[in-house]
Amino acid sequence: MKPIDWDGERLVLLDQRKLPSEVCYLKCSTVQDVFDAITKMVVRGAPAIGVTAAYGLALAMKEYKKNQHETEYQYLEKVADKLTKARPTAVNLKWALIKMMALLGSSEFGDFYDILIKGAQDIHRSDLEGNYKMGNIGAELIASGSSIITHCNAGALATSGYGTALGVIRKASEIGRVEKIYATETRPWFQGSRLTASELLSDGLGVTIIVDSAAGYLMRSERIDWIIVGADRVTSNGDVINKIGTYNLAVLAQRHNVKFMVVAPTSTLDLCSLSGFDVDIEQRSETEVKYYNNQLIAPLNAKVFNPVFDVTPNNLVDVLVTEKGAIFSPDQEKVERLMNQSNT
Amino acid sequence: MKPIDWDGERLVLLDQRKLPSEVCYLKCSTVQDVFDAITKMVVRGAPAIGVTAAYGLALAMKEYKKNQHETEYQYLEKVADKLTKARPTAVNLKWALIKMMALLGSSEFGDFYDILIKGAQDIHRSDLEGNYKMGNIGAELIASGSSIITHCNAGALATSGYGTALGVIRKASEIGRVEKIYATETRPWFQGSRLTASELLSDGLGVTIIVDSAAGYLMRSERIDWIIVGADRVTSNGDVINKIGTYNLAVLAQRHNVKFMVVAPTSTLDLCSLSGFDVDIEQRSETEVKYYNNQLIAPLNAKVFNPVFDVTPNNLVDVLVTEKGAIFSPDQEKVERLMNQSNT
Repeated sequence: MKPIDWDGERLVLLDQRKLPSEVCYLKCSTVQDVFDAITKMVVRGAPAIGVTAAYGLALAMKEYKKNQHETEYQYLEKVADKLTKARPTAVNLKWALIKMMALLGSSEFGDFYDILIKGAQDIHRSDLEGNYKMGNIGAELIASGSSIITHCNAGALATSGYGTALGVIRKASEIGRVEKIYATETRPWFQGSRLTASELLSDGLGVTIIVDSAAGYLMRSERIDWIIVGADRVTSNGDVINKIGTYNLAVLAQRHNVKFMVVAPTSTLDLCSLSGFDVDIEQRSETEVKYYNNQLIAPLNAKVFNPVFDVTPNNLVDVLVTEKGAIFSPDQEKVERLMNQSNT
Repeated sequence: MKPIDWDGERLVLLDQRKLPSEVCYLKCSTVQDVFDAITKMVVRGAPAIGVTAAYGLALAMKEYKKNQHETEYQYLEKVADKLTKARPTAVNLKWALIKMMALLGSSEFGDFYDILIKGAQDIHRSDLEGNYKMGNIGAELIASGSSIITHCNAGALATSGYGTALGVIRKASEIGRVEKIYATETRPWFQGSRLTASELLSDGLGVTIIVDSAAGYLMRSERIDWIIVGADRVTSNGDVINKIGTYNLAVLAQRHNVKFMVVAPTSTLDLCSLSGFDVDIEQRSETEVKYYNNQLIAPLNAKVFNPVFDVTPNNLVDVLVTEKGAIFSPDQEKVERLMNQSNT
């Protein structure tokens, strides 16, 4: 099951909303298709939506009609701006689109479509390579016989394949370091039970699902060594913005002496934000909490507060794993030093 | 909507599994009906299942057939033993049945049915009276303009009416102390979104639902003054066993200087257990987490760890409110002193 595929003409996305009960694919041929797929969570996960948006920008060229009011470049700038707004918190979206626009340089000529398709494929491929590197770096930190809790889905489905947090868990399992893996179900979208559990089982790894609120009791009653999560954005001081509930896990981990690992490619680092508390946290519709599968599970007139992400301050993070290396107890100096380092 | 009613012949229970979308009642005329209603969560909430079991014992007399092998008293002892096992953690079940059996004394004669029905009605009535007392005692502790988070349902539906935690919130709202009420949805049964939100709205009080894992972010981003919850059991040192997720909230409350109130009648106090960690925590079926409304939301072969309760140590509890009075920073000495005090 490939979450993102380019069939030569269209972007083919696995519809993650329907997993694991249905496996179906959505073919995107326009910018609006791509925008909707990101907004409606057909595709999700910071690295995956970065790659998706890159293909979206390339697809835009098919819709461009030459006119005297707008150059191709100006048109693409508008499209990039629209795509950036599809989801406000994950920074990979913006990162990918800036990278794509930079490929075009200041040139107003050339076959932009070809340049952009190649650019999107490069981002797609290098994201996957980064996942394998992070898998190796993170797995080395896991001692034999470790039990791990992961939250949401930071797996193959959230990336170009393999995964960030799940990449580390996969690699650590492969080299025999993992005793038990727990996945939080992750309300309101159940990415943990629907996606993470499915990915692990399809790799032949055992998984035990818990409701999100059972994490504290689990840490108190069983030996848990690591919490390992991905990130939607890491700010320059090492604060981590990730799926709602990550902060709760980090606070509980500290109380129970459980180590806390964040796995994210450098495309998730946002050097423009000094702290996680400066970042706009996406609020999504109350229907996500009040309905399940079109069935109302709350009174119709109840209000809902539905923030999709939360902020884990850097002092609760033991290690940040990127494709460029790991940072222990991340802070601004260490993050900047990592970013200035050339690619290995 | 009365959660528990005696129609003169049968026990009429509101089926809480179907709220708020359907309002239907289940009529119990046998011990097995009552046992099943408790086990399958037609009725839930520690005080409510205590009252239900008391009526169940009375109903048992209708099924007793005189025989030389067993006196009525011996027969009822067996029934009480069976009913106690319907759910292992909430101590009110055991408390109510011991109280009922004590009414029969050592007498082997007399109209046991009449004695037991009257006994069940007394427990039912005094539970409701206790709720109102706790409402008054707890509400006095809430300052004007307070915002409150409550977990699960400790309302009219969990008791004989009015509620424990929700009783305090109702009374505090009535005297103008409450600014905002948040209800956690409370997986896996959604008692927060289905029951607590419905109760508050039907009282004309506003309510905002959050997913359980949004509590930390909420405490970080809005001013929250109190977490107010009920209890399924309070041990002699003041540890609190309550719905899974309560412990997470207590840990987060401590970090954010949010006060933590537990509201429970003395029938929930278990002086035989020295600490919450000595108590058997009920584990329920994995289908509760893997299915919603008969739809599979996780891979069929995933394992599930589904503890229904967790333990909040006494040092995370700011105040325990009972019908006999409030205890600040509860410990063994204070709990024992309260229990030895005569009823007010």
